[in-house]
Amino acid sequence: MQAHEPQVYLKAITLRDPVEVQLIKEDLKKQMIVIIRVTPLAQKSVDELRSVIDDLYKFVQSSGGDIARLGEERVVITPSKVKIWRGAHEIT
Amino acid sequence: MQAHEPQVYLKAITLRDPVEVQLIKEDLKKQMIVIIRVTPLAQKSVDELRSVIDDLYKFVQSSGGDIARLGEERVVITPSKVKIWRGAHEIT
Repeated sequence: MQAHEPQVYLKAITLRDPVEVQLIKEDLKKQMIVIIRVTPLAQKSVDELRSVIDDLYKFVQSSGGDIARLGEERVVITPSKVKIWRGAHEIT
Repeated sequence: MQAHEPQVYLKAITLRDPVEVQLIKEDLKKQMIVIIRVTPLAQKSVDELRSVIDDLYKFVQSSGGDIARLGEERVVITPSKVKIWRGAHEIT
């Protein structure tokens, strides 16, 4: 590892309220990878979850990161320097 | 992004057979982050899954990466330059 190479962090969180989206965006700006368990919000309101995912999708499009579903429970979002590999193995 | 900054990849795969562990280690050596859905192997053999996780845990200890459970279904493993953030929000 080079001396000045910045440390990359991966964070796994549970999203319970749409207001937490702002914190996720701040983590992404800090180049953190965020894995979000969305089940609690999905159980509360599918519409709120859809709105949150739309919001994060637009954020990722404008900031150059990536977003993918991880099964039914989770979504993974990466900052600009991390890409989600889509190849022979599918995201499942 | 700096011109010479290497691209980091995140890969989500499903582990069905212990023989696939070698491919995961090769991805980690290439500095890929790997999210592994372990449910199919767990359903086949809990002993085989335990052996695979032990093997990956030792690999991560010797190579300087990190490993954490993501609920019942998945395990996330990072290469040496990516650390799993353990803070106010728990891994769930």
